[in-house]
Amino acid sequence: MSELIIWTLDWVPEGPRGFVRDLRLRWACEEAGLSYTVQTVPFDDRETNHLAQQPFGQVPFLSDGELQLFESGACLLHLARKSDKLMPRDPVGEAHTLQWVIAALNSIEMVTVPWWFLTMSGTADNGLTEWMNSRLQHLEAVLSEREWLAGDRFTVADLSMADALRVKEVRAFGDRPETESYVERVTNRPAFRKAYADQMAHFEAASAKRG
Amino acid sequence: MSELIIWTLDWVPEGPRGFVRDLRLRWACEEAGLSYTVQTVPFDDRETNHLAQQPFGQVPFLSDGELQLFESGACLLHLARKSDKLMPRDPVGEAHTLQWVIAALNSIEMVTVPWWFLTMSGTADNGLTEWMNSRLQHLEAVLSEREWLAGDRFTVADLSMADALRVKEVRAFGDRPETESYVERVTNRPAFRKAYADQMAHFEAASAKRG
Repeated sequence: MSELIIWTLDWVPEGPRGFVRDLRLRWACEEAGLSYTVQTVPFDDRETNHLAQQPFGQVPFLSDGELQLFESGACLLHLARKSDKLMPRDPVGEAHTLQWVIAALNSIEMVTVPWWFLTMSGTADNGLTEWMNSRLQHLEAVLSEREWLAGDRFTVADLSMADALRVKEVRAFGDRPETESYVERVTNRPAFRKAYADQMAHFEAASAKRG
Repeated sequence: MSELIIWTLDWVPEGPRGFVRDLRLRWACEEAGLSYTVQTVPFDDRETNHLAQQPFGQVPFLSDGELQLFESGACLLHLARKSDKLMPRDPVGEAHTLQWVIAALNSIEMVTVPWWFLTMSGTADNGLTEWMNSRLQHLEAVLSEREWLAGDRFTVADLSMADALRVKEVRAFGDRPETESYVERVTNRPAFRKAYADQMAHFEAASAKRG
């Protein structure tokens, strides 16, 4: 019996399907060969129905036996300690993996997520565009020189970064061939494809039941 | 001789003084009693003059002997492994510290930093206000129930969160007495006050030289 439980919503509208962040945890478990189950909290009243597990009302969160953990970035780093398929075991490889996970969360997503949010809310020229362009161009330069972000191999840093970058509107932003090739490469991994298909199936099955 | 070198800019204008993120690393070292030195890269051409050390052109970055590390969040978690004054050593305490460091970076700063940026650029009603209010109110509820975020004691999670929250415009946003008391409590620590004074002195000395 698996000790790992990935918690997500029981249902979401079509828009976010394929992008809810339980996907990052499914993907990590698939890469590492860690067995897990998926359990759900209701979409209705989602902002308040699981505050004891996730104080911001978000998903996913993770149960690992007695340990409860939220923030997908923290869950990923927690899972990465369980398998060298997600993070090298040497101190330098580990530190560089950590560094690029944080770069995805605090240098890239800190701009791309609010930019996306404002763009989707109809504020296309939203004042973050130039800032995002600068960040993404710097990243394009990095990706022109290497295949993977840390340790010369796939790590949970690539998982985090590629998942941040594959958002349709971000992916379509500007001409960044190295980044496009990187996103293509990382999301072609069987573990991503399985995690993505599983999440889509999960929400579609819920839709059928919801009627 | 210290192995730890915190890299920052040689000078910044008055506005960001006291807020450049080398402060987080100075603060962590002061809490942990880790000896360190501070070295600088030039403010002029800062976006391109240290890309080999920091691919987004930001500061700080850290040298730890042979290891080079950027992203202040990653540097903090790296330093936290050196001292239980920054992070408990039991697996649950460590996981919860990690969780709240990531919450500061990816749930709070992901909204507060772009909100602040847009507000400072003159777009006060910038579409992120409601989102930020929701995040900060959720955090207010958490802080009404505990003194510290993880492990019933000060950790690097409080350092990260309080430094995100003490930004003047964020601090003045809404009426959040528990958060205000938390920010007051954390930034009253001698290690914060020393790190803050040291950063101010560093930039003021540079200004005197710059003339």
